[in-house]
Amino acid sequence: MYFKSFFNKPLAQMAYLVGCQQTGEAIIIDPLRDIEAYVKDAEAEGLKITHAAETHIHADFASGTRDVNRKLGATLYVSNMGGDDWAYKNMPDDTVYLNDGDTINVGNIQLKVLFTPGHTPESISFLLTDKGGGASTPMGLFTGDFLFVGDVGRPDLLESAAKTKGTTESGAEDMFQSVKKSEDLPDYLQIWPGHGAGSACGKSLGAVPMTTLGYEKENNWAYQIDNEDAFKKELTTDQPEPPSYFAEMKKINKEDVPLAGDTRVYPLSLSDLTDLVIDLRAKEVYQSSHIKGTLNIPMNDKFSSYIGWFVDYEHELTLIGTKEDADEAAHQLQQIGYDKVKGYLPSEDIENPVSSLTIEADDFLELNKKENLAILDVRNKSEWEEGHLKNAKRVLLGNLLEEDIPYDKEEPLFVHCESGVRSGIALGALEKRGFNRVINIKDGYGALREKM
Amino acid sequence: MYFKSFFNKPLAQMAYLVGCQQTGEAIIIDPLRDIEAYVKDAEAEGLKITHAAETHIHADFASGTRDVNRKLGATLYVSNMGGDDWAYKNMPDDTVYLNDGDTINVGNIQLKVLFTPGHTPESISFLLTDKGGGASTPMGLFTGDFLFVGDVGRPDLLESAAKTKGTTESGAEDMFQSVKKSEDLPDYLQIWPGHGAGSACGKSLGAVPMTTLGYEKENNWAYQIDNEDAFKKELTTDQPEPPSYFAEMKKINKEDVPLAGDTRVYPLSLSDLTDLVIDLRAKEVYQSSHIKGTLNIPMNDKFSSYIGWFVDYEHELTLIGTKEDADEAAHQLQQIGYDKVKGYLPSEDIENPVSSLTIEADDFLELNKKENLAILDVRNKSEWEEGHLKNAKRVLLGNLLEEDIPYDKEEPLFVHCESGVRSGIALGALEKRGFNRVINIKDGYGALREKM
Amino acid sequence: MYFKSFFNKPLAQMAYLVGCQQTGEAIIIDPLRDIEAYVKDAEAEGLKITHAAETHIHADFASGTRDVNRKLGATLYVSNMGGDDWAYKNMPDDTVYLNDGDTINVGNIQLKVLFTPGHTPESISFLLTDKGGGASTPMGLFTGDFLFVGDVGRPDLLESAAKTKGTTESGAEDMFQSVKKSEDLPDYLQIWPGHGAGSACGKSLGAVPMTTLGYEKENNWAYQIDNEDAFKKELTTDQPEPPSYFAEMKKINKEDVPLAGDTRVYPLSLSDLTDLVIDLRAKEVYQSSHIKGTLNIPMNDKFSSYIGWFVDYEHELTLIGTKEDADEAAHQLQQIGYDKVKGYLPSEDIENPVSSLTIEADDFLELNKKENLAILDVRNKSEWEEGHLKNAKRVLLGNLLEEDIPYDKEEPLFVHCESGVRSGIALGALEKRGFNRVINIKDGYGALREKM
Amino acid sequence: MYFKSFFNKPLAQMAYLVGCQQTGEAIIIDPLRDIEAYVKDAEAEGLKITHAAETHIHADFASGTRDVNRKLGATLYVSNMGGDDWAYKNMPDDTVYLNDGDTINVGNIQLKVLFTPGHTPESISFLLTDKGGGASTPMGLFTGDFLFVGDVGRPDLLESAAKTKGTTESGAEDMFQSVKKSEDLPDYLQIWPGHGAGSACGKSLGAVPMTTLGYEKENNWAYQIDNEDAFKKELTTDQPEPPSYFAEMKKINKEDVPLAGDTRVYPLSLSDLTDLVIDLRAKEVYQSSHIKGTLNIPMNDKFSSYIGWFVDYEHELTLIGTKEDADEAAHQLQQIGYDKVKGYLPSEDIENPVSSLTIEADDFLELNKKENLAILDVRNKSEWEEGHLKNAKRVLLGNLLEEDIPYDKEEPLFVHCESGVRSGIALGALEKRGFNRVINIKDGYGALREKM
Repeated sequence: MYFKSFFNKPLAQMAYLVGCQQTGEAIIIDPLRDIEAYVKDAEAEGLKITHAAETHIHADFASGTRDVNRKLGATLYVSNMGGDDWAYKNMPDDTVYLNDGDTINVGNIQLKVLFTPGHTPESISFLLTDKGGGASTPMGLFTGDFLFVGDVGRPDLLESAAKTKGTTESGAEDMFQSVKKSEDLPDYLQIWPGHGAGSACGKSLGAVPMTTLGYEKENNWAYQIDNEDAFKKELTTDQPEPPSYFAEMKKINKEDVPLAGDTRVYPLSLSDLTDLVIDLRAKEVYQSSHIKGTLNIPMNDKFSSYIGWFVDYEHELTLIGTKEDADEAAHQLQQIGYDKVKGYLPSEDIENPVSSLTIEADDFLELNKKENLAILDVRNKSEWEEGHLKNAKRVLLGNLLEEDIPYDKEEPLFVHCESGVRSGIALGALEKRGFNRVINIKDGYGALREKM
Repeated sequence: MYFKSFFNKPLAQMAYLVGCQQTGEAIIIDPLRDIEAYVKDAEAEGLKITHAAETHIHADFASGTRDVNRKLGATLYVSNMGGDDWAYKNMPDDTVYLNDGDTINVGNIQLKVLFTPGHTPESISFLLTDKGGGASTPMGLFTGDFLFVGDVGRPDLLESAAKTKGTTESGAEDMFQSVKKSEDLPDYLQIWPGHGAGSACGKSLGAVPMTTLGYEKENNWAYQIDNEDAFKKELTTDQPEPPSYFAEMKKINKEDVPLAGDTRVYPLSLSDLTDLVIDLRAKEVYQSSHIKGTLNIPMNDKFSSYIGWFVDYEHELTLIGTKEDADEAAHQLQQIGYDKVKGYLPSEDIENPVSSLTIEADDFLELNKKENLAILDVRNKSEWEEGHLKNAKRVLLGNLLEEDIPYDKEEPLFVHCESGVRSGIALGALEKRGFNRVINIKDGYGALREKM
Repeated sequence: MYFKSFFNKPLAQMAYLVGCQQTGEAIIIDPLRDIEAYVKDAEAEGLKITHAAETHIHADFASGTRDVNRKLGATLYVSNMGGDDWAYKNMPDDTVYLNDGDTINVGNIQLKVLFTPGHTPESISFLLTDKGGGASTPMGLFTGDFLFVGDVGRPDLLESAAKTKGTTESGAEDMFQSVKKSEDLPDYLQIWPGHGAGSACGKSLGAVPMTTLGYEKENNWAYQIDNEDAFKKELTTDQPEPPSYFAEMKKINKEDVPLAGDTRVYPLSLSDLTDLVIDLRAKEVYQSSHIKGTLNIPMNDKFSSYIGWFVDYEHELTLIGTKEDADEAAHQLQQIGYDKVKGYLPSEDIENPVSSLTIEADDFLELNKKENLAILDVRNKSEWEEGHLKNAKRVLLGNLLEEDIPYDKEEPLFVHCESGVRSGIALGALEKRGFNRVINIKDGYGALREKM
Repeated sequence: MYFKSFFNKPLAQMAYLVGCQQTGEAIIIDPLRDIEAYVKDAEAEGLKITHAAETHIHADFASGTRDVNRKLGATLYVSNMGGDDWAYKNMPDDTVYLNDGDTINVGNIQLKVLFTPGHTPESISFLLTDKGGGASTPMGLFTGDFLFVGDVGRPDLLESAAKTKGTTESGAEDMFQSVKKSEDLPDYLQIWPGHGAGSACGKSLGAVPMTTLGYEKENNWAYQIDNEDAFKKELTTDQPEPPSYFAEMKKINKEDVPLAGDTRVYPLSLSDLTDLVIDLRAKEVYQSSHIKGTLNIPMNDKFSSYIGWFVDYEHELTLIGTKEDADEAAHQLQQIGYDKVKGYLPSEDIENPVSSLTIEADDFLELNKKENLAILDVRNKSEWEEGHLKNAKRVLLGNLLEEDIPYDKEEPLFVHCESGVRSGIALGALEKRGFNRVINIKDGYGALREKM
């Protein structure tokens, strides 16, 4: 048996390739739309990807299963559980719909379906037994977003992101049962989760790529709580607000994802800029000189996390930066199902730039003693609840473009987050909303906390 | 002024980027469909490609001008000369049609149009003057396929490849006039040709990327012949047969080239193979073990030259080899306007392979003394005329799939070219035509000549 | 805690990076000499490699620990067990020598030393507990060459490769005890081995990168045998002959490995060739035309395995092929501690080439019926014992340059291995030994077996 | 004949590879120490670099000729002209010392030596005739730093950089003669210069990579002045101050350049920082947060130009940034003969950072009306002479670490250059000199000029 995991850092996402060397067949589990790496790795091992499966309808990335079918001719295996609301549509004719207890055979490797709802109603896991290797005992479990290293999947995404009312409560109940059910499996099982640290699909994922069931039974909080209500409370409390693109992902992953094509982008002129413009440069460079009303989401590992809050799937957007960064941004946007990047403006072509104002934490605190300042905190609800400035008001960063901002647009507005990264994005969002005198508090609440 | 040449080795093709740093504008001359390199180079210099021009309707590659327009918004500049038969169609509305003496201004750089027919009726050249640099004298001439290093463009392609009768004669006359006309230009002009060594657009191109007009006047044969008839005779004699894809190029470049998209290809199964299958492996590897009837065109610098003889623009083809080679092959096929690669078969998946028979030159000569052998020479006419085996018959390599082959399919058939490269391709073509006992003469006529 | 494994495919070797995000410290376990990948990965996570440990004195690659110390300033942690013969020499002053039960602290991560001899007398394992993550139970075990996926380390290398008499027996006893001792550890432990499939350090390693202790207890043969003698017999039987470079590795890893420098190589002329010349081209290309007496070890994933049999650490060698392949070969040679590549000959510069003779399996069998042929089988002892040609004699491929070959140099000598890969190497080795009429049996004993 | 130019953008330097396909020999002219690109290009053409020549003792980069000899075994060809002070030392025994009129034969290609002093006393040019191509007339001239596109080489480097008194005057006289002498050569000659736009070896080099002699006669200022005194005045006026590393280059290129090795660098700790620390990050990032007294030379195309002012060949330096940037910086430093990079500090490890103060141009002008400010202009002499602030004093950027700075270290010191790039470097240099209140005038004298 051949086994290989693929970690996509921007999405903190794991896909898995499992192959039977005896027959040359392989399965890819939870693939992204960009399938090049899977195909090349399979080729290097003399394997052909003949099967593709997914654990559930993903909310945080566009599924690549349909691409694996169209490009490689692989048969798709998806959940048949969870009821009509979660039924896949527009799938290839030979798609296999999986029920609890079904098995997928990839050469001499067997994957048995375990129904593990909670994160979503249709979530399934795959229990692998390496029959080709002579084993009759299972080796490991592909858990998708059911079980992570140190956590379980959050049940509230459908309600908070996809606005499906009442599903959080029932999801939490399902999750409790799924956890209980998994306790019967052997301790020595390897656990291969759908996400690693950094994903928004769980709140406290570890940075170790995998784990074992026995270790989780000992260390994962979800196995320590026997009372269902206590479990549900712990599970549903303090989950960070999910990015707004999650709703769109649910929809396209259920209904259809277009074939992923070429994502290379080309330079535009100032007159080509769209309503939404994302500036990809480092925050210090942006703040020194940028086009008013453009949003600064630097091209780094966090790009996918932040852009998901602001991207509008109905409309084109433009980028600012180098071709290299713009190509990478367009590629990452493709992974979350957005294919409408119009092009990019080279940063040398910026005209009439503005610069952002910054105040040091101690200067701000001094000023705040004397005057009643307008202060906007753009952090999460849970961060706010752990402590905030008395005279601040909170609007979540991701909502800055739509939500009412309770301040006068012509007065100085001080903005902060925890470390200065998110408030750097907020600067442009506030400019876009018409605020003309925004001042960034350097290093955010983290710096304020130290000086207070 | 910024100047940069781009040499595409498989096509021996030159594109040129010229930019005015004072205004940030740039022109790309004779671009290929893959425009990434031009865009990145312009960006690194702070330039934007705002203009694209071409010297004539190319026969040997698919023009990238329409892509430059669609992707970069650049204005196109094309020839208005040569009559209705050579008029561009389906061009963007703002395309500028150029007459002899017109000028293109790229910032402060001036390109003056010189009508230089001969290679084709509509061929033009561009005389560059760097007005931004303060010059009033011209610096150089973009000659397209009019004037090369050591040669001039061949006038027979339209007739031999595109089957436009009678154009060779008139083209040769035009070329004589174009050469004469160019003699009035100053010796110190740089000559920037459309092709370098290895192109099928001229018969004796030098491997130096550029030249000067004065040097050509001294050394290029075309400037040494004052008699028109002698010139025409020299020009039209011994031109190698042009690849058959040239006809298709003429057509699409005149009428339309689709937007170049993603060329990545994916693995197939044996049952997916198309009628035409190209094996990309080294010739020794192919000859040791291959699928009968597949053609061996190894993925190296010569791939584009050979594939152009066999590709059929109406039908899909499949490749055999690694993903890396198949991706590169599909990319090179895109450059000649072919977008129908169905996929590739990993070479490990070959079943029921055959191997090719090879005979050493001296063994063959010994045998040929005793028996009356069936011998097929697949070289060019001019090579044949310089010397060949008495009992051989000739069919041009590129015609092996269509032309009548005057031998019995069940008898041993000895095949050779000059060095063994082309006969390696012929092996599969003959298998495809039903010849069951083909024997390759190792190292070809080159080896035979030495031993005879 | 951050965890990352690095798989070196040519050596089938695993190194591990473990970091404590709370303090920014990291440890690299069993590093190769090329440390670039480790450093870049640590940097991307904001970690600094401050510690390096190794599980034992490696026999199959040159250890990178000393390089990690010299280049990164990391403190080294090595075994203090196994007695004076296995004591590290010439280590940095601040090296920590580890005894059974000692602990290494990397920030808040704890590695506890378990003495697990058997593969070698000084072998240790590291039991990891993620104290920073709040755990008091161990997460996994770095087993080095003690425990693999589906196998345990072979105890005979010291005796068979390094010629240390009597160590196989005592090593097998040690291994039995180490296995027994490990049974007390919890089933849910992750097992992080030092090698994956393809390594010569064990005979039946799985292609899954990791496992769990519980799964091994169920499936690994070593946990199924309770009788010590039976265990020892099973462990020491049918181990393939180890490559001859293993002896050199043991020596330098114990005594000193020079700082790894630039491995790029440059073209040479025919007159520069050394006694040992390795031709890196595909076997079909080599067999079609090569320099007599050069050895053909194609540059692919198997290069490191085969070259280790022939490399002579006292003398320079030269390569034949492209610069790209020669650079890669020199890099892989550096990983096994060989830094004496003199340069490479471009294959175009080959003069007076010879070609190899090949015979199809059925032609050979026909001939073998009639004549008493000279046949050389170059397979392993265990392959030979499973079946061989009656009139064949066996000399192990790796010994062809030194061992007596019991045939007449002027008579036809038929050579085969199992599939044709190793006999392809044997061709050049036999030429080098003076055999003038060597004939390769195509596809080896595998093909013969089918036809007999 | 094969011809290929190699443009090194950081050094604006041109090397040339010329090969004779008939014999497979090639010559590299004016190589850098990093010879990989030359070797690979030659290999792709089936050529071997058997000769290396240089036009003069370079001042702006470390010559790669000795590496070409050591690594490739090529014979070296260097100038024998100019007298004993300019005689090469420690050259390989078979080095050929060239006098005016000598010829180098590379296969059938002939290079004739023309003595063209002026830039330096020993400067020679090479007149190429492609005898293999059948030519008896020369094709082009490798001019080194004698003749550029639009300029001639400056004669003052020896005096201003290498402190060789009186050589500027005699160099200018030589240059006048060299120019006169070249007028006899044919107009159609291609001119292949040693530098392109951006080099400090001439003051107004064009961005076109090559030219022709006739075009230069028409357009280059040096051919327009017939009066020797006028020529000398024009040539020696307004030459920018040369970087201080030029002196070291002259020395090592004459005496010896060590073999270029591995330049990869590794992370250090804060306590490892050397006296000179170069921060490679973007200027906005540096100015927002950096270690006091470190110099900010961002890793971009200008790095080599600026670092040459500050590097001290006797001592180690350290870098700040990513491994990728630090590796590139070390590589570029190798090109200018500096091999003592100790390592780099990842920017996340910066502690106790300071930020730089910036003032907008109009705010500064307002302030400057009211108060008598301390202003430091770090531009070149010629820029200063074209216009400067009345109350400013000038110290050349490159001298900031040594020269007396006539201001009080505790008073506010306003610093500017032309655009803000060089003053960004000055900030750290002034901090290093002990100035505690430095304020950067945003966008420099360019912005001031507009507002005044």
